[in-house]
Amino acid sequence: MLTYVFSDDRDPLYEQIYNFIKTDIMNGTLKPGEKLPSKRTFAEHNGISTITVQSAYDQLISEGYVQSVPRKGYFVADIVVPHGMRHVTEKARKEKNEADAEENFINLSDSSPDETFFPFTVWAKLLRSNLSMRQPDLMKTPPTGGVEELREAIASHLGSFRGMDVDKDSIVVGAGTEYLYGLITQLLGRGMVYGIENPGYMKLPRIYKSMGVSYRYIDMDEMGISPDGLDKAGADIAHISPNHHFPTGITMPVTRRLEVLDWVTGGNRYVIEDDYDSEFRANGKPVPTMYSMDAGQNVIYMNTFSRSLSSTIRISYMVLPEKLMERFRKELSFYSSTVSTFEQYTLAEFISRGYFEKHINRMRLHYLRSRKAALSALAKSDLAGKYRIKENDTGLHFLLELKTKKSDEDIKERLKEWGIKIRSLSDYYHDKAKAPGHFFLINYSALKESIIDKICNCLAESIKD
Amino acid sequence: MLTYVFSDDRDPLYEQIYNFIKTDIMNGTLKPGEKLPSKRTFAEHNGISTITVQSAYDQLISEGYVQSVPRKGYFVADIVVPHGMRHVTEKARKEKNEADAEENFINLSDSSPDETFFPFTVWAKLLRSNLSMRQPDLMKTPPTGGVEELREAIASHLGSFRGMDVDKDSIVVGAGTEYLYGLITQLLGRGMVYGIENPGYMKLPRIYKSMGVSYRYIDMDEMGISPDGLDKAGADIAHISPNHHFPTGITMPVTRRLEVLDWVTGGNRYVIEDDYDSEFRANGKPVPTMYSMDAGQNVIYMNTFSRSLSSTIRISYMVLPEKLMERFRKELSFYSSTVSTFEQYTLAEFISRGYFEKHINRMRLHYLRSRKAALSALAKSDLAGKYRIKENDTGLHFLLELKTKKSDEDIKERLKEWGIKIRSLSDYYHDKAKAPGHFFLINYSALKESIIDKICNCLAESIKD
Repeated sequence: MLTYVFSDDRDPLYEQIYNFIKTDIMNGTLKPGEKLPSKRTFAEHNGISTITVQSAYDQLISEGYVQSVPRKGYFVADIVVPHGMRHVTEKARKEKNEADAEENFINLSDSSPDETFFPFTVWAKLLRSNLSMRQPDLMKTPPTGGVEELREAIASHLGSFRGMDVDKDSIVVGAGTEYLYGLITQLLGRGMVYGIENPGYMKLPRIYKSMGVSYRYIDMDEMGISPDGLDKAGADIAHISPNHHFPTGITMPVTRRLEVLDWVTGGNRYVIEDDYDSEFRANGKPVPTMYSMDAGQNVIYMNTFSRSLSSTIRISYMVLPEKLMERFRKELSFYSSTVSTFEQYTLAEFISRGYFEKHINRMRLHYLRSRKAALSALAKSDLAGKYRIKENDTGLHFLLELKTKKSDEDIKERLKEWGIKIRSLSDYYHDKAKAPGHFFLINYSALKESIIDKICNCLAESIKD
Repeated sequence: MLTYVFSDDRDPLYEQIYNFIKTDIMNGTLKPGEKLPSKRTFAEHNGISTITVQSAYDQLISEGYVQSVPRKGYFVADIVVPHGMRHVTEKARKEKNEADAEENFINLSDSSPDETFFPFTVWAKLLRSNLSMRQPDLMKTPPTGGVEELREAIASHLGSFRGMDVDKDSIVVGAGTEYLYGLITQLLGRGMVYGIENPGYMKLPRIYKSMGVSYRYIDMDEMGISPDGLDKAGADIAHISPNHHFPTGITMPVTRRLEVLDWVTGGNRYVIEDDYDSEFRANGKPVPTMYSMDAGQNVIYMNTFSRSLSSTIRISYMVLPEKLMERFRKELSFYSSTVSTFEQYTLAEFISRGYFEKHINRMRLHYLRSRKAALSALAKSDLAGKYRIKENDTGLHFLLELKTKKSDEDIKERLKEWGIKIRSLSDYYHDKAKAPGHFFLINYSALKESIIDKICNCLAESIKD
C-alpha cells in the first residue's frame, strides 16, 4: 500500500500526492502496469479526502503517468524514462514540481483570455505576407508611439467600437500596460499623488511603489471613487476603471463621472481611464468612455490587446490629451518603441481588415456561453440555495457570495488542497478588515465546461463543516 | 527659369529645393517631360552651390519625380497624380516633408545595423513552424525574465561566444535596453547615484533624468573612467561599456578593470557593463567581460539583439548577480514579460540552431568590408593628407580627425545642407567646451559603397574656406 508522509508546507495536498507518485514511477518504485490503490482506499489509508486523491490521479492521468481502465482501476503507464535525462537536484526538482503544480491549478482568479481561441491561422497569414512583402517597413525604426499604420487602425477601431474621436498622433503603443504606466509617471512628473481604487487591481500599488511614486488608496462606494475621496487623500491623479471596475464590476454612473470630470478640471490633475475589457460587454452597448465626455482634455485613455487577443502578445496603448502629447513629444520621444515592428504591422492589418472585430464578437459569444454554463451548473449543484451572484454584464468574471460561516481563508485553503485557486473580494482590499466577507471571484473566461461541475462540487464541499 | 525663395529655417537647402520642385511637379507647374535647368545654371541662378543642387536632384531621381537622360539633362517624369489623393494642409505637408527629408539624410552618426542583411527567410521559417507546431507554448504566460528556452539559448551563446558562465535563471529578457534600465533603477532602489561616462551614449542621461534618479558625469581618461572619478562624484553605480566605449572606441585595459572591480566590492555598489556591440569586433578575440572577471558578483551584464539583428526587433537582456536576482524574484517578478512569446521562441531557435552565429559572422565580414571601403575611399579622396583615423578594431564606426581651422559646428552645418548628418565627438560630451575639436563620428555599418565617394567629397568640400 502507498503510504506517504505529507508536509505542512505551502504545497497543496493533491500536489504532494501527485509528486510522490510521479517520483515513484520515474525512479521505478512503481512499475509499469502496476495497479494503484482505489481513490477511496488511498484516501482512507492516508487520512485524506477522496476528492484530493481524485485531483492527484486526474493530473497523473492527464500527463500520461497513469492510465484509468474503466471498472478495473488505475494503472501505472508504460513509461520510457529517457536515457539522457538530466540529473536534477532535489531542490531544483521540488521547485520545478511546485511551478508545474501551480500551472496545473484551476485558477478561478486568473483574468487571461481563453487562449485556445487565438486566431493562429489569420495571424500566421498576415505575418507571412508582411515578412515577404513589407521588408523595408519592418526594418524602419518607428517613432516612440509606434508605427503609424497601427495607430491609424487603433484610432479607427476606437471610433467605430467606442465612439471615440481619436487622432492617431495622440496614441502611444507600448509593450504592455505596465510599461505604459511607467511612461505616464515619467510624463506627469514624479511629484504627483496617484489615487487608486480600493478594492482594485492588485498589481497597481506594487507598480507605483516600485516606480517610486506616491499613491493613495481611495475607498469605493457603490458608484466608484468620489471627488471627496480623492480630495481627502490629496490625490492629483485618479487611476480608475469607470466602465467596468475590477473586481466589483461596478460601472460608474454618469452623475459620478461628471463629478470626477469636474474635479479633474480643477488644476494640474488627470484621470487615467483603464478600459481593459470593454470589448467583452455581454449585453447592450458599451458605456461611452470618460475620455469622450471630457471637454477639458484631462483624461488619459488606456487599453490592451493582451486582454482581447492573448496575454503573451505584449501590445497595449494609451491615448493622451493634446497637452500631454505635446509634452510627450518634447520630453519622451527619445525612447525607442518597445514593440517589434513585425507584430505592430501584423496587428495593424488584423484590425484594419476586420479580423479583430470578428475575433471580439466570437470571444464575446464564447464568454457569454461560459458564463451561462457556469451559472446553470451552480444552480444545479449541491451549492443551490447557498449562494448569490453579484450581477454584472461585462468582462470575464462574476462575484459569488457564499452563504457560510466559514472564513474566506478557510474556504480558500480547502479549495487549494483540491487544486483550485480562488480569490475572495477581500484579497483586493488594501485593508482586508474593511472588506465584506464571503464574496469570491469566479473567472469563467477559460473555464472548460467539463470541469465546471467539479468546481461546483468542490465549492459546495468547501462550506461544509 | 526656376527661381525659389529659400528660408533660413532649420530645413537644409537641398531639402527646400527638393520640396519646391516636387510640389511644382505635383501641382502641374512643372509638366511631364519638361526640362529642368542644369545643376550649374540652377546653382548660379539661385546663388547656391552645385553640390546642393546635385543632392536635391538625386533625391528627386531616386523617388521617381525626375529622370536623368545622359548627355541631355534632367526631365520631369511622367507622373500620374492619384485622383483620390488626400487633401493635406500646408502645415501637415511641411511636417511630413521635414520628416521625409530627415529620413533621406545620409546619417553618419546613426548606429543601427545594416538592416538589408536581416535574415528574413530563416526568421519567417522559424516563425511559421512555431505558429503551427507550438501553439500551447506561444499562449503560455512566461515568467517576467522571459521564456526559459530563450534564456537557455542566450546562456549558451554567452558561454561559447563570450566565455561567460551564466545560469539561464540569472537572465532577464526585456523589450529593449531602455526598458531594462528602468527595471534596474527599480531593483537597485532610487537612492543610488549613477555614474555615466563623459563622453558617452547621449540617451543615457536623458533616461536617468526621466526616471528621476540621480546621475553624475564621470570624465574618461585614455583608459576609461576611474575609481577616483567615481568616488569624487559620489557614485554608487558605474554604468560603463568597458569592452568598446561609445563613441571613443576605448577598450578598458585589465589594470583599470581590476581597479574598478576593487572599487565596486567596497560596498553597496554595482557596475552595469553594457556590451552592446561586442559581436562585431573585427580583429582578434573579443575581450573577456567584467562580469566574468568579477568574483564578488557586483556586475550586471547587458546586451541587445536590436544591435546585432535589427533595431526594430525589441529584445535585450541583462544578466544579474545572484543576490540581485534574488531581489528581482522577490520584488519585481510580478511584472509581465515585455516581449511577445512569438518572438522569444523564434529568437531562441534562431540562436540555438546556429543561425545567429552565422548571421554575426556574415555581418562582421560585411562591416569589415564597409570599413575598408570607407578608409580606402578617404585615402583616395580630396581629403587625403587632411585627416587622421582614430583606430579601433571593433564596432560599427571610427573617429575621423579633420585637419581644419573651421569649427565643428560650421562643418556640421555645411554637411547638413548637402543632406549629410554628422556628429562631432564634442556632441557626446556633457561639457562641450572640454571636448577636443575636429573629431567626427563615421558610422559605416549601413554605408552603401556607392555613396562613400560622395561623402568623401562633401567632407573635403566642408573644410574648404
